[in-house]
Amino acid sequence: MTEPPRPDPIQPADAEARALAQRLLGLHHAALAWTDPETGTPGISRIAFARDPDAGLLTLVSGLAPHFRALQAHPDCALMLGEVGDKGDPLTHPRLMIRARAAFVAPDDPARPLIRARWLDRSPKAAIYVDLPDFAFVRLTPISALLNGGFARAFRLSPEDL
Amino acid sequence: MTEPPRPDPIQPADAEARALAQRLLGLHHAALAWTDPETGTPGISRIAFARDPDAGLLTLVSGLAPHFRALQAHPDCALMLGEVGDKGDPLTHPRLMIRARAAFVAPDDPARPLIRARWLDRSPKAAIYVDLPDFAFVRLTPISALLNGGFARAFRLSPEDL
Repeated sequence: MTEPPRPDPIQPADAEARALAQRLLGLHHAALAWTDPETGTPGISRIAFARDPDAGLLTLVSGLAPHFRALQAHPDCALMLGEVGDKGDPLTHPRLMIRARAAFVAPDDPARPLIRARWLDRSPKAAIYVDLPDFAFVRLTPISALLNGGFARAFRLSPEDL
Repeated sequence: MTEPPRPDPIQPADAEARALAQRLLGLHHAALAWTDPETGTPGISRIAFARDPDAGLLTLVSGLAPHFRALQAHPDCALMLGEVGDKGDPLTHPRLMIRARAAFVAPDDPARPLIRARWLDRSPKAAIYVDLPDFAFVRLTPISALLNGGFARAFRLSPEDL
């Protein structure tokens, strides 16, 4: 018994989808999925998020956060951007899912001073902890992305679309 | 060289933490982290969520969603519940992270009619798709949980607290 072929429910991105993705990339928080190095099973965290003009997709992570060690051991991760409004089915509110690979920014990375300055421009309160020794900026280099704009409106995006 | 012991930043749950967790469990959507069966790397999705009085933590999944096949292959997953408000640092808004194991509810499961009826009571619009052959209810049995109530306010919860 072979199943009949199913139509691919995911469409290539159009201009409207790319514009929606750009809007979601302007959010300053995301959900991050990672692999627990002890169990090999998934973990999830809320992260601070920003798109840096030079460094790309970025987060700032505390050494106390469980995903700090997880991303050091397994850089592959996935993030989701999107808010759920007060009304309607949460699954109809748009969200952007990005498969990414994490790379820690070293304290002496020549790009760090500008990354830090731009982060503090957006989030002045981060000045309290940004220079603590166990905090680190982490680049999240996108590998692929899926935009879900609501029921039956899914689009595949390339890293260049982000 | 041994590092000095660090204080455990996670506290045991108190009554206030349990009450906050209960409030977050009343939300009807969550972020779900899962393992991609093709790559072994993390994926992330938004899911519909409800706590069913008999079946426990529950979602309803379309066969077109990438986490449908992922959860069949790797039942270990993690979900995060919590909204980010308009104001302040997103990391200070409370969220509940739950490590869980997924189990699909079979179409002929004797518990399904009541699970379905209660789901439709909460989400009448789901009547459009709940009985489509590739949709399935999935129980998410909690293994452990972490409540983050804001900066430096993290609590460990047991499955019994949920």
